[in-house]
Amino acid sequence: MDILTNTAKAKQAAINLAGIPNTTKNHALRLIAESIATHTKDIQSANQSDIKRAEQEHVSPPLLKRLKFDEDKIKEALSGLAQLESLPDPVGMTLRSIEMDQGLELFKVTCPIGVIGVIFESRPDALVQISSLCLKSGNAVILKGGSEAMETNRILVDIISKTTMASGIPEGWLTLLETRADVAEMLRLDKTIDLIIPRGSNAFVKYIMDNTNIPVLGHADGICHVYVDQTADMDMAVKIVVDSKCQYVAVCNAAETLLVHEHIASRFLPVIKDALEQKGVEIRGCAKTLEYIDVKPANEADWSTEYLDLIISIKVVDHLETAIDHINRYGSKHTDVIVTADKSRAIQFMNYVDSANVFFNASSRFSDGYRFGLGAEVGISTNKIHARGPVGLEGLVIYKWLLFGNGHIVSDYSGKHAKPFTHRIITKTVKE
Amino acid sequence: MDILTNTAKAKQAAINLAGIPNTTKNHALRLIAESIATHTKDIQSANQSDIKRAEQEHVSPPLLKRLKFDEDKIKEALSGLAQLESLPDPVGMTLRSIEMDQGLELFKVTCPIGVIGVIFESRPDALVQISSLCLKSGNAVILKGGSEAMETNRILVDIISKTTMASGIPEGWLTLLETRADVAEMLRLDKTIDLIIPRGSNAFVKYIMDNTNIPVLGHADGICHVYVDQTADMDMAVKIVVDSKCQYVAVCNAAETLLVHEHIASRFLPVIKDALEQKGVEIRGCAKTLEYIDVKPANEADWSTEYLDLIISIKVVDHLETAIDHINRYGSKHTDVIVTADKSRAIQFMNYVDSANVFFNASSRFSDGYRFGLGAEVGISTNKIHARGPVGLEGLVIYKWLLFGNGHIVSDYSGKHAKPFTHRIITKTVKE
Repeated sequence: MDILTNTAKAKQAAINLAGIPNTTKNHALRLIAESIATHTKDIQSANQSDIKRAEQEHVSPPLLKRLKFDEDKIKEALSGLAQLESLPDPVGMTLRSIEMDQGLELFKVTCPIGVIGVIFESRPDALVQISSLCLKSGNAVILKGGSEAMETNRILVDIISKTTMASGIPEGWLTLLETRADVAEMLRLDKTIDLIIPRGSNAFVKYIMDNTNIPVLGHADGICHVYVDQTADMDMAVKIVVDSKCQYVAVCNAAETLLVHEHIASRFLPVIKDALEQKGVEIRGCAKTLEYIDVKPANEADWSTEYLDLIISIKVVDHLETAIDHINRYGSKHTDVIVTADKSRAIQFMNYVDSANVFFNASSRFSDGYRFGLGAEVGISTNKIHARGPVGLEGLVIYKWLLFGNGHIVSDYSGKHAKPFTHRIITKTVKE
Repeated sequence: MDILTNTAKAKQAAINLAGIPNTTKNHALRLIAESIATHTKDIQSANQSDIKRAEQEHVSPPLLKRLKFDEDKIKEALSGLAQLESLPDPVGMTLRSIEMDQGLELFKVTCPIGVIGVIFESRPDALVQISSLCLKSGNAVILKGGSEAMETNRILVDIISKTTMASGIPEGWLTLLETRADVAEMLRLDKTIDLIIPRGSNAFVKYIMDNTNIPVLGHADGICHVYVDQTADMDMAVKIVVDSKCQYVAVCNAAETLLVHEHIASRFLPVIKDALEQKGVEIRGCAKTLEYIDVKPANEADWSTEYLDLIISIKVVDHLETAIDHINRYGSKHTDVIVTADKSRAIQFMNYVDSANVFFNASSRFSDGYRFGLGAEVGISTNKIHARGPVGLEGLVIYKWLLFGNGHIVSDYSGKHAKPFTHRIITKTVKE
């Protein structure tokens, strides 16, 4: 089937999905888990064939690692599905109830966004997470995964489509695209697709924005900072910097730049140099850093580079404000950390750093939907509207305003003898 | 000053505005009101000169009416400012608090979006409303009003800038653009501007979307429907249709199409024809409508036309589902109404009509921030992400995630001996 037919079906499915009860969605999630468990061998053999092809094409080791859908990752996917099943329905929640006048009641109620296009890397576990999040939040989804995972993606989409159809979810709610031409076509369908979620580099997200009128929820680079303030506890600062940089280097919430207050630089820099070099990290320092430790010099480009590798840049700053300015200028509005013993300075940092996640005395690596306790996530948004930071079920719904009247008209509330509105907050929900 | 300098200043002002206390913002709102009251004569003379120029240029009467900033409208603007002052600070509200582990606490806290560009029609009252909403929500704003209101806009921006500076609001938070070239330039500044709010026709909003990478919160056409169901109370249906169509025809929440269930058509159509024709409304009917009443035939284009005038199109439908399909196909996701005595059919309509505002037995004209009790509004969003329907203070903020730790690192929560997360919902706010 061509993409136009598929998206038209997705649109219709989305309208119907909006009214599907939570029990049906949960039943479908349970069946998906059962079916994945039953077909583990078939999934793994598809994944083996993807891996073999990727190895022949000399794909990089980190990519190969993410492509692998082994028993551990399948188990994780199954427990993710179970967790999602246990969460309350994000659709149909009354956010606000206002009595406008006697018998005229207004409700702000959550509802699905509609049809969501998600473009993601070669990670089969992400396919399961994204499609199950969309299902639970009542959205139809058009997926384009990395081509390296093609065969694994196909069998997973086949399993999920069949089991959800069997549990009463509208046919066509899930579509898999396979070619770049299909993606280009999808980006033109602003009448049927409500949101595009691209996961990838800044350049990739910018390419998507340049080529579509559909709203984009960007999941771009993580240029994350740790700022070590003058009053920081040195041991704590070392622990947090090492964890932020080294715990998993290839991910967006790893730190790329370390900022150090000049009052602590002479004591802290030699210590952190040893700690990082023990972990095999290459250090690139600003001119002031080089006065204290013997490392490679950093250049202007280093401040806006996401290394995703065992490399870190270091800059010495003269004030808290300089650190904040640096982050707001070079960062990617993802995750930034202050280490300090002075909570009022932490609050200042947290107020003025314009990022989705701002942490005080904790590692940047905590920035994650699972660790936050949101269940799963479709990714970490660096957007400044709609949803910010880890995006779980809440980020996949919007709301509508429902007004219940009894023949009320505006004429009665305007002009010289206008009736007044009561605008009383009430505790009713729309279901009562 | 050129636009690049101005937006850079706006960006810096936005960062500082994020931490400004509510008392300062409220004080500024009070001073704005006082200064507008003091300068009423100057404002009115600027407005007179705008009106004179518009009359010479033969601007249409509805536009002239909106351009006029007379004593009544100034009074309304002042009471709007007072209302805004009385509302709680939308910034710094804790939306969610999660204990991730002992001493590791996560807060989802509201914050301003940043720099917002608003393009709006020739309505000086809208300028006051938009800029005061942005101030209270802590956003810097770049305004482009209709050129017909140029002189009124200038004096208002001058008053607002001076008084806010005097009350400690960062300079440069408010900028007025005057030329189309400036707008074109603004649309390119996706590094500094966080959101564009265009108010106008679908074609205009589409033009903006085609020409920018900045997220757009569209305020497009209102192609609003009233659906009269088979069980509708006839008198109520007439009242609601007449109010929805005629109470104020030139606005986006006025009805453009009437859908009538075929079981009630023979009784309802002659009655509604009389009622509408008494108000001077021209009726364009589908083929089935013409079987019952003698009116002009409607063509395909009528179903997607926003008349903004004393014209209505009528279609007879055979099922509730047909009405829902029609609205989802031809509507603009703005405001749609069902009139019925059967609440379960109303709930079905409300679940499946994919619009920002869906009303049961009430006029479409209630779709408005003031009537909803939101205070003021920057407009009515037809977007499906971020903010939907009337957009007040809540739609002008986003959130950030603040994590407070005590040296917590992710290494301790991963691998074989991983510490578990507690993920306990707590009631603390970030200020405690």
